Amino acid sequence: MSLAEFALINRIRVRTRERADVVLGIGDDAALLQPRAGEQLVVTADTLNSGVHFPAETPAGDIGWKTLAVNLSDLASMGARPAWCTLALSLPDATTDWIDAFAEGFFALADAHDIVLIGGDTTRGPLSLSVTAMGQVPAGTALRRDAAQAGDDIWVSGTPGDAAGALRAWQAGTLDVRQPHVDPRWEALRLRLARPTPRVALGRALVGLAHAAVDVSDGLIADLGHICARSGLGAQLDATALPLSDALRGLFADADARQCALRGGDDYELCFTAAPARRDALAALAAQLQLRLTCIGTITDGQGVACDGDDAGAGGYQHFG
Amino acid sequence: MSLAEFALINRIRVRTRERADVVLGIGDDAALLQPRAGEQLVVTADTLNSGVHFPAETPAGDIGWKTLAVNLSDLASMGARPAWCTLALSLPDATTDWIDAFAEGFFALADAHDIVLIGGDTTRGPLSLSVTAMGQVPAGTALRRDAAQAGDDIWVSGTPGDAAGALRAWQAGTLDVRQPHVDPRWEALRLRLARPTPRVALGRALVGLAHAAVDVSDGLIADLGHICARSGLGAQLDATALPLSDALRGLFADADARQCALRGGDDYELCFTAAPARRDALAALAAQLQLRLTCIGTITDGQGVACDGDDAGAGGYQHFG
Repeated sequence: MSLAEFALINRIRVRTRERADVVLGIGDDAALLQPRAGEQLVVTADTLNSGVHFPAETPAGDIGWKTLAVNLSDLASMGARPAWCTLALSLPDATTDWIDAFAEGFFALADAHDIVLIGGDTTRGPLSLSVTAMGQVPAGTALRRDAAQAGDDIWVSGTPGDAAGALRAWQAGTLDVRQPHVDPRWEALRLRLARPTPRVALGRALVGLAHAAVDVSDGLIADLGHICARSGLGAQLDATALPLSDALRGLFADADARQCALRGGDDYELCFTAAPARRDALAALAAQLQLRLTCIGTITDGQGVACDGDDAGAGGYQHFG
Repeated sequence: MSLAEFALINRIRVRTRERADVVLGIGDDAALLQPRAGEQLVVTADTLNSGVHFPAETPAGDIGWKTLAVNLSDLASMGARPAWCTLALSLPDATTDWIDAFAEGFFALADAHDIVLIGGDTTRGPLSLSVTAMGQVPAGTALRRDAAQAGDDIWVSGTPGDAAGALRAWQAGTLDVRQPHVDPRWEALRLRLARPTPRVALGRALVGLAHAAVDVSDGLIADLGHICARSGLGAQLDATALPLSDALRGLFADADARQCALRGGDDYELCFTAAPARRDALAALAAQLQLRLTCIGTITDGQGVACDGDDAGAGGYQHFG
């Protein structure tokens, strides 16, 4: 490791906070962690590559935020309490400005959710970021994709489709996602793409309330399809019940807004199923978290996701299309 | 996720074995794992990028092996028992032949050490591989870099320098590391570079015997320097005591062979310190593991690594030189 590499890593290391269960953090061959007795580990890994998962010109701070957000979202969908993460960072060149901006976004989100960076690797290569995030749940309580039951309500958090709307406009050249927009509606959509909010508090609160859960990363239809496939059941979605934001409805035609909500995955909302008897409890939870929770359909004895009676087909982003 | 991507991931998933402590493996938003009570987690992450950490023409099987080996080596240096890992795999294109060959190397080593792949991400991008490996140790027993004591013997496993010799010859165009060599000496060196052996059994056996340990990834002098820096002590190396292999001594001039052993890191041997009173126990361990263990110096009250009385300076690979 050269002095330059060491200095670079140190700019990240100084930003890491302490946690009582981190016995030994960055600086040895591996970290030493003390898991809580009686709990299970929840582990997920996601990679973001420049030019594939985000445009090359994305601001470093937003990349840092999103790199962690997509992993926290996976922990959230399992109902886990975030604890530790590793970061593999490949950089084409090593500028302190870029690192500092990246760290701002990464640690703003990490600190908000009390997840601590405990190791990783900084290498030279095309810009690529891989995080492995670890959390914990009391044994046997995790939310899984395979636990939906026929007759369950299907719920979604927030107002899905906003980030997909921003992405469409960016790709069409009508929105620059790198800087604030004067129109508050575009600004609302832009922030949902640039700095998505992983629904960690919701996921934890759903333990004991929900049956199955998934985070919407590939698109609502595609990810709900994962619940159906793993649970051996079907889903009937009511597209008219989709909770579209005022901004999305104001800026897009009805059909386009609906497509964003059904097939866009960049909001990282949670989709979950729960018994109809839980409706009051979920309404109370929505009020407590100040987060919209909307019932958008029903789990059925069939298979696949039907939308307003039609087969909704596969959606989502295709890496190897 | 497209069908093509799913098929690709499935070629890897079908190779994963079961482990009793994997409650839920690949296929949900995250894995669920049951850590052993009373133990600490040991977590490390390392990345290999094509063209940086290995030449682009490296066979896929060797890449798969080495991707895991470098991480198992970090677990070994902590004295940990390997348990689980995640793999972030970025591929420029997706051929089943490449994936199958990669999986052969990766799982040959994984199965040998009972480490199970429990998640990851397959994305399109320049060839890059990041593994986060997790293991366990009884609480408080891990081998650390900061635990050397003045007067400790310094030990190294195996015959360091072999892989560096092969790398030199490859870079000079005199050895093709991709295929077997007719000369058994070159073949011995080639295998040490292509398929390095992480010293997992040694690391576990050193718990309670050794004070400090590090795996030699940056070079013996550089990595021993990490022990010195973290322990606030110095090291006196006896270069004449270095256990050079017959192959390395036969193929390289003395000074070159010694430089390979002192500054080459690709063997992934362990360097550790132990009280002189442990010499008999370590000799017995070497016999039991059929692995050479050689005392090559002494931990001193000074600072830095001196070699035969001269300051050895920094060695090792520089990513940002």
